[in-house]
Amino acid sequence: MSKEITSRAQDYSQWYNDLVIKGELADYSAVRGCMVIKPYGFALWENMRDALDKMFKDTGHQNAYFPLFVPKSLFEAEEKNAEGFAKECAVVTHYRLKADPQRKGKLMVDPEAKLEEELVIRPTSEAIIWNTYKGWIQSYRDLPILVNQWANVVRWEMRTRLFLRTAEFLWQEGHTAHATAEEAVIETKQMLDVYADFAENWMAVPVIKGVKSDSEKFAGAVDTYCIEAMMQDGKALQAGTSHFLGQNFAKAFDVKFLNKENQLEYVWATSWGASTRLIGALVMAHSDDQGLILPPRIAPVQVVIVPIYKGDQQKAEVGIKAKEMIKQLKDLGIRVKYDDNDNARPGWKFAEYEMKGVPVRITLGARDLENNLVEIARRDTKEKRSISLDGLAAFIVELLKEIQQNMFNKAKTYRDEHISSTDSWDEFEKLLDGKGGFISAHWDGTAETEEAIKEKTKATIRCIPLNNPREKGKCILTGKPSTQRVLFARAY
Amino acid sequence: MSKEITSRAQDYSQWYNDLVIKGELADYSAVRGCMVIKPYGFALWENMRDALDKMFKDTGHQNAYFPLFVPKSLFEAEEKNAEGFAKECAVVTHYRLKADPQRKGKLMVDPEAKLEEELVIRPTSEAIIWNTYKGWIQSYRDLPILVNQWANVVRWEMRTRLFLRTAEFLWQEGHTAHATAEEAVIETKQMLDVYADFAENWMAVPVIKGVKSDSEKFAGAVDTYCIEAMMQDGKALQAGTSHFLGQNFAKAFDVKFLNKENQLEYVWATSWGASTRLIGALVMAHSDDQGLILPPRIAPVQVVIVPIYKGDQQKAEVGIKAKEMIKQLKDLGIRVKYDDNDNARPGWKFAEYEMKGVPVRITLGARDLENNLVEIARRDTKEKRSISLDGLAAFIVELLKEIQQNMFNKAKTYRDEHISSTDSWDEFEKLLDGKGGFISAHWDGTAETEEAIKEKTKATIRCIPLNNPREKGKCILTGKPSTQRVLFARAY
Repeated sequence: MSKEITSRAQDYSQWYNDLVIKGELADYSAVRGCMVIKPYGFALWENMRDALDKMFKDTGHQNAYFPLFVPKSLFEAEEKNAEGFAKECAVVTHYRLKADPQRKGKLMVDPEAKLEEELVIRPTSEAIIWNTYKGWIQSYRDLPILVNQWANVVRWEMRTRLFLRTAEFLWQEGHTAHATAEEAVIETKQMLDVYADFAENWMAVPVIKGVKSDSEKFAGAVDTYCIEAMMQDGKALQAGTSHFLGQNFAKAFDVKFLNKENQLEYVWATSWGASTRLIGALVMAHSDDQGLILPPRIAPVQVVIVPIYKGDQQKAEVGIKAKEMIKQLKDLGIRVKYDDNDNARPGWKFAEYEMKGVPVRITLGARDLENNLVEIARRDTKEKRSISLDGLAAFIVELLKEIQQNMFNKAKTYRDEHISSTDSWDEFEKLLDGKGGFISAHWDGTAETEEAIKEKTKATIRCIPLNNPREKGKCILTGKPSTQRVLFARAY
Repeated sequence: MSKEITSRAQDYSQWYNDLVIKGELADYSAVRGCMVIKPYGFALWENMRDALDKMFKDTGHQNAYFPLFVPKSLFEAEEKNAEGFAKECAVVTHYRLKADPQRKGKLMVDPEAKLEEELVIRPTSEAIIWNTYKGWIQSYRDLPILVNQWANVVRWEMRTRLFLRTAEFLWQEGHTAHATAEEAVIETKQMLDVYADFAENWMAVPVIKGVKSDSEKFAGAVDTYCIEAMMQDGKALQAGTSHFLGQNFAKAFDVKFLNKENQLEYVWATSWGASTRLIGALVMAHSDDQGLILPPRIAPVQVVIVPIYKGDQQKAEVGIKAKEMIKQLKDLGIRVKYDDNDNARPGWKFAEYEMKGVPVRITLGARDLENNLVEIARRDTKEKRSISLDGLAAFIVELLKEIQQNMFNKAKTYRDEHISSTDSWDEFEKLLDGKGGFISAHWDGTAETEEAIKEKTKATIRCIPLNNPREKGKCILTGKPSTQRVLFARAY
């Protein structure tokens, strides 16, 4: 039978790893903390990337590419940013290897090829990009600059997990430059909306938009906006961030522009990013104990067709029907796979595509075909039904939409059922250890309280929701006066 | 007027740099030898990448992603490959920075965060990938593996040039695994054909397919196949390589499979790559002293529309016509830009788009429009003509095809006129210093002679053309017997 998966109930964390490995999304590598993204996982990422890329371009952004390396002197220019990332930096110190005289056929770092200035591998690219923008910006006519980059970045994490936290990961980082603070804030919020739109309408993952507290914001930002998703174990996962950087980087790199009044001003900045971590969110938001469940809009394979036959003649007959069907589906833009591999039995294939989260399976049985019927199985609900071949393609198009919507609704219902509100510290702790999820509670607004709550419960402030209603209350921990509730949760 | 470009005649090398910088393809960066690919240059790369990517997928390949880092012990496993790249390796030795006690606000490499094993930044990924394939391959049923990766790589070059030779560059690298040598060789040649198809039919750059001599082949390969293009100064540029790796990497990483006869065998390998260097080839193959000339199939903007008007009313009227025209062009899949920016005069715009190599310019004059006419200017031939608005879009589609073909023909005529054949050493040297181009000459087949010719003339063997006719002759340098002519040239 199929590869075994640990159940969620038994060991949630192992369940996640099983899905990623056995669903063939990614693999461990020989490099500590770095993963290999396998073809199936990468096809998923390509679909996510292409959808996001189109949204970026539709909002006026262009792609560009900046160096992997950041000279240390540039890296340290924006002090808060540098401080925030210093502990996680991979550093290139040498540019040559040479034959090791002690060990035949082996190599050693050539001590004579030491760099005068060390190069940091980008953990994020504000420094190298703002140093470049300095040469691109003279007057307000050069603004705005609306640039995005798809790239790999490295953050040396001590505890890593496939997709969720790896030393190297793939992401996009938008870096924009503006003439006014207002315009930059509008951009920051626009890109948050793009992320929320993508998460909800492509990944079928509902998210809450909000602002980070000072302790949780991006190092070097004035404000960090975020979208927060909820996983099936009730923990939060930050699925995208958009930062209003004020003039911090413009000041650090001395980037000024001549405004319409002919005066020199520092440029205003934003940056925003989403990464392969989203794949982790996708896996944990939707999958079950049989495997992945992928939303149709980004699934690498939307429909798999498995033929059932005896002997070569039946195989050929079924194959002819399948070919017609595949053409009809492809003409409607559906990503379809036909698996007539003789090395595996149908039951094994069923389990395999269930594991891989293919949204729809069509079983083409020789006998059913005589009656003009096929069997359709939905991955999300596991429903099966026989339907007529007539109008099949149009039916599948609608079914994929329905699955997409159903997955979102299911995740949203779970999420909504797991947002609790409390004014009692006891209940706060009980909720975290029991039901889990997001807890809406009053907070006195200080970093000290935030830290104390984190120490006691491992829960952090995930965000202060946008358009949060004002409400007088008392801080859940200290009892000090508070003006609004914020969302707490344990998080990935 | 326009930004000035050094002419080809005056200083070919400076002409190239001017085109890249003033055509806004790329920019120097703060990191030695690394470039910034600007939005216009990156849009060009995206079009090239997407076309190649489709060709890879159409030939059955899937994308994946492998780590940036190669642990030194893996890097050195295939000795020839390691030896070939050792001198160009950027090496990560530390994973943390810390506050520098000597300099307030500054950082230093934390000596306590030294890696036990150094990490090489991939100059190419055979090592990390074959170490991974070891875990993926057990039997012939797991073969072939047809995987490609789009990635950044680093080769620490001492003398760098934008696009042509940079410390970091973007590329794709295909890495395939096969059960038989025959199948691997077929794959190697197939991918060479894909590169040639792309160079000729997308980049409009004619190429010669051939095999490298032993001295010029990829470190670790059994055979390196290549496509060689000719630049306008008569020098050669290697535009893509496809390597038959034999069992070299399988042996280095102990990757065996159980064949159909139930015996363990080492796996056969290929790898093949093309990089942002292709942009350098594109620039040097087609451009002129007014700027870039981009082939329509990959040009970021295929058609630019420049309106000419006086006053807001005329601008609005012309704008309405332009809008219709843009819709018609976009409906036919044409990438079109409308530039009604009031900050620049038409003459400046003309020069600017000429500089950027936009294949077709449409001038929309208010007066011409009264007569239902527009002016069309071709970038490649600089011809201008007035044509009727009726059927304009269909005309443009044909014109773009014609430009694409004309660019290829022109480059091919130049290339063919600059392939010379000689049996005299004097003429060989004269040709290299005078007319330039490729020289077809006899070679005795030894690495020593090849090296001696290189020492004397700076010319190398670019390739032994595929299907090279056998012909008895005497080596151009040594006079020793030879069985075939090979192509010599000075090269980028």
